[in-house]
Amino acid sequence: MILTVTLNAALDVTYSLDHAKLGGVNRVTAVSSRAGGKGINVARTLAALGEAGIISGFAGGAAGRAIREDAAATGLLDRLTPIAGESRRTLTIAERDRVTLLNEPGPQVSDQEWKRFVEEFGLLARDCRAVVLSGSLPPGVPEDAYAVLARMAKRASVPSLLDADGEALRAGLRGRPEVVKPNADELASLTGRPCRTVSELVAAAGDLRSAGAEAVVVTRGPGGLLAATDEGTWVGAAPQHMSGNATGAGDAVAAALALGLADGRPWPDRLTDALAIGAAAVAGALAGDVDLDVYRRLRACVRLEKL
Amino acid sequence: MILTVTLNAALDVTYSLDHAKLGGVNRVTAVSSRAGGKGINVARTLAALGEAGIISGFAGGAAGRAIREDAAATGLLDRLTPIAGESRRTLTIAERDRVTLLNEPGPQVSDQEWKRFVEEFGLLARDCRAVVLSGSLPPGVPEDAYAVLARMAKRASVPSLLDADGEALRAGLRGRPEVVKPNADELASLTGRPCRTVSELVAAAGDLRSAGAEAVVVTRGPGGLLAATDEGTWVGAAPQHMSGNATGAGDAVAAALALGLADGRPWPDRLTDALAIGAAAVAGALAGDVDLDVYRRLRACVRLEKL
Repeated sequence: MILTVTLNAALDVTYSLDHAKLGGVNRVTAVSSRAGGKGINVARTLAALGEAGIISGFAGGAAGRAIREDAAATGLLDRLTPIAGESRRTLTIAERDRVTLLNEPGPQVSDQEWKRFVEEFGLLARDCRAVVLSGSLPPGVPEDAYAVLARMAKRASVPSLLDADGEALRAGLRGRPEVVKPNADELASLTGRPCRTVSELVAAAGDLRSAGAEAVVVTRGPGGLLAATDEGTWVGAAPQHMSGNATGAGDAVAAALALGLADGRPWPDRLTDALAIGAAAVAGALAGDVDLDVYRRLRACVRLEKL
Repeated sequence: MILTVTLNAALDVTYSLDHAKLGGVNRVTAVSSRAGGKGINVARTLAALGEAGIISGFAGGAAGRAIREDAAATGLLDRLTPIAGESRRTLTIAERDRVTLLNEPGPQVSDQEWKRFVEEFGLLARDCRAVVLSGSLPPGVPEDAYAVLARMAKRASVPSLLDADGEALRAGLRGRPEVVKPNADELASLTGRPCRTVSELVAAAGDLRSAGAEAVVVTRGPGGLLAATDEGTWVGAAPQHMSGNATGAGDAVAAALALGLADGRPWPDRLTDALAIGAAAVAGALAGDVDLDVYRRLRACVRLEKL
């Protein structure tokens, strides 16, 4: 069992229409919605891979209710902490050839609600093989939230993976998470270094390891990933460029890395899985969906190189 | 007491942000929402003018709950009929200098739900001085819904005002509503006539009266209105062009006309009120809000001309 944390869970709503016009009146053809936020997508990928994923974090208001209903319908283990505020929605406007995102601000979380979450996290983490800390922090949650949670996990001998950016990531590193998984843009913005070439990525990943990360896996979109670990540094890519929906591919990679972390598998195995699952997620219809056939096919032909 | 009907009630959600970019990721600064749909806006204006307005129609799902909660908080008399489907939302993206609307499709209404509404409408209408039939029809509601309701009101000796467009308006005329209130675009599209000049509007309004409308009031935005009635034909305009939010000005005009209809006041009085309230609604912050100071000031200087 793996514990995923989504402090800023969202109801992901998609409006489909042929063509949207700013400044006009647009008729939406179809509306769909489901539970979202990075950690919930991770739990969905874990479930697809046969690993039970608990979802934790905050849920409140009508959007919170809808998140919980969808999570239950999907078979995810819901341990979300109720809050008085209204969970955010993210709106995707999906036109025939363009995708627009509108992200609502997160709900205000009170001190008491945060404390209640921390207590529940402590109880849940003890029963899990790994924890995944994902995404942005809603207002009211302390900036060092991920450091607090990673330390608690460590005390319970449970390894953690951190996938966040900006200040949440910077402060989270102080909890010394076992794996930190930024993408190249997040890494560049945090370290102030360019992150285009392999040697630039190695240098920036080194900064994160100095700041507390035990291992760093940088995702580079279709460019694959780079991993800097105690066992060595690797670069790798999936053998073909999948076309499809790249949203959520990073969450699928996080799910694979968390599973490898929980199983204590060698890094080359973890990275091969992560690359194949990331590519399979791009072929999936929605964030968190993974095409398992694609995954199995790609696993055999991932390219991985030790530097 | 006036009965307003909003068969396709909506939760009107507004996303405020400085600048939106299609194809990008946008951070919404503020989210607000309230009960909407033309009839609910009419009821809100009636309440501002001191007349109790009942809201009726359909409400379902999370959006339906939010509509009812907001209506209750506003002091509107809620007699909405519950449905299994999910009420629609309308999303307004309000940038600094541009407003975009995204309208969800309405919920599916079953035969049984429609029948239950018709029964409740019959009971409510008997206790009211007028009924206002506003806006689009959700899927499943018969195309001649407004004709059915207008006839029922007439049998109960209650006059009705119809504010709809397209097929809902065309079919509704057969119920011989006392007042029909299209805007110039809706009138042009229904009659196939140009509706720019006064003589064109008179001809098109004549078509609607031949098809069943006892009186026709055409709104022309800042251009004022034209009324074709048994007592004569008038054109009128508010004395100054208000700047502000024109959404909902038509609903404020409908509220004033319904009140004049209920009171059986002479047409020039009704039209003077309607013009002043329409202009005051443009000065209001949100659809259905009316600036009463502006209304009282403008009432004294509306220009009205009998043709």
